[in-house]
Amino acid sequence: MKIGYIGLGLMGKPCSFNLIKAGHSLHVWARRPETAKEVVERGARYCGTIAEVASRVEVLFLNVTNSNDVENILFADNGVIKGGKKGLIVVDMSTISAIATRNMAKRLKEHGIELVDAPVSGGTIGAVNGTLTIMVGASEEIFDRVKPLLLHMGTTVTRIGDSGAGQVAKSCNQIIVTGNIMAVAEAFQFAKAAGVNPIPIREALLGGFAGSKILDIHGKRMLSGDYTPGFKTALHKKDMGIVHDIIQELYLEAPLSEMGLEILAKAVEAGYGDIDSSAIFKLNNTQ
Amino acid sequence: MKIGYIGLGLMGKPCSFNLIKAGHSLHVWARRPETAKEVVERGARYCGTIAEVASRVEVLFLNVTNSNDVENILFADNGVIKGGKKGLIVVDMSTISAIATRNMAKRLKEHGIELVDAPVSGGTIGAVNGTLTIMVGASEEIFDRVKPLLLHMGTTVTRIGDSGAGQVAKSCNQIIVTGNIMAVAEAFQFAKAAGVNPIPIREALLGGFAGSKILDIHGKRMLSGDYTPGFKTALHKKDMGIVHDIIQELYLEAPLSEMGLEILAKAVEAGYGDIDSSAIFKLNNTQ
Repeated sequence: MKIGYIGLGLMGKPCSFNLIKAGHSLHVWARRPETAKEVVERGARYCGTIAEVASRVEVLFLNVTNSNDVENILFADNGVIKGGKKGLIVVDMSTISAIATRNMAKRLKEHGIELVDAPVSGGTIGAVNGTLTIMVGASEEIFDRVKPLLLHMGTTVTRIGDSGAGQVAKSCNQIIVTGNIMAVAEAFQFAKAAGVNPIPIREALLGGFAGSKILDIHGKRMLSGDYTPGFKTALHKKDMGIVHDIIQELYLEAPLSEMGLEILAKAVEAGYGDIDSSAIFKLNNTQ
Repeated sequence: MKIGYIGLGLMGKPCSFNLIKAGHSLHVWARRPETAKEVVERGARYCGTIAEVASRVEVLFLNVTNSNDVENILFADNGVIKGGKKGLIVVDMSTISAIATRNMAKRLKEHGIELVDAPVSGGTIGAVNGTLTIMVGASEEIFDRVKPLLLHMGTTVTRIGDSGAGQVAKSCNQIIVTGNIMAVAEAFQFAKAAGVNPIPIREALLGGFAGSKILDIHGKRMLSGDYTPGFKTALHKKDMGIVHDIIQELYLEAPLSEMGLEILAKAVEAGYGDIDSSAIFKLNNTQ
């Protein structure tokens, strides 16, 4: 199938490689053309504009940083709506706001173009190995058409609901991960303050109700002091900023998420932006 | 071995049954003698006072509600110090404060009596099946002596450290469980407010970094609306009260735990005291 890919960063590049490996014909464009070098060496065709990519493909993947990036790619001069024919499907794998997604999906539909939200979890390793968890917001019909492509990049590909539902699921993922990292960090700080080594505590608790991926992996990072990411604190803070914006927009009470954003901001200020976000454990815990 | 058991409630009764099943000779006393009926029918000897129990056994198990109960059993008239010989080991399976535990252990030591803290997780089902997780605070020597007995009641029996360390581990367990329940509840509330069904979200997230025992079991309770405990909100609140007291005493900053206590208190006020604490999901989440 003729496929476009825009956003060849840490996540997008390995995803585009996996699509080429599966036999698809890729068309790419990049804000800095040199970032497309490796994928072009693997046979992708480089196009001069986003509109040209959009005009040549049936499905166009995006993997960028924020809502503004997506909006520019879709609607700016020489953007997707300039080149995209009726029936084009844009699959946005970026983590952005569900509300922005829904608005852009409506605007694209006026041009006969579908927008699917398909944010991922699983990190760079998951992208390289094609083992991402992908949460999809789309109609059942459109989901059935893009699912085979997504399965080249991820092992768990779930339709959560209609437009925006993938982004909502990703926000839920970030809320739960954040709360659990905070809880494990606070428990270990509590143990240390009470004069008890947290190492045997983590081991004793892993098999019980406190057991989780976070207690296992992030708990180990905290206790070994090895904060190689993983998921960088600065990006984690960005994702919780998206959650925060939706909380504000929906007038929700979500005190745990708000506390999480504050703590992540504190960690970035403390200089932990480029290390794993489990480094919130290192923040001062005495009054 | 001659063993004493005081505190034949929901947890203590099945634990005492498992000790009898393993061939030990039990001596019991109960504030309300009728609660000892079943264990006496199974061959336990009923004693008229706590002091009498203490005088007849090598190891005495306690399983009561709070620090005051333990203090009364140990130090009140006709209590443990009245009857207990030098070398007696008291194993307290209650969930109480680590600081209270350390103080009582010191006082008992003046009488030649050891106090071991051995709080559990795993609930009534774990107590009945003998599959509890038991977190122990004791010297290595004393731990080695009581471990074979604890293995009749639990499958994971871990020495965390010296006196009080078992209670600290239990507090850590409660902090992590609380934070994780809060996070799952808030994520599901977020999804509902954003118009997305949380059921496929839970399923998509179970295999990723958000995956945990709580997302699995408590998440299912929230989404099915079946709040059969499990662990009652009122008891959960009590345990977080113990955490709160230690936070205060150590001048710690532990905002997640404090928020957890507040939310559990709100849930008890809302009438959810006797149902599973995952019912915090039902609390109002709009401003």
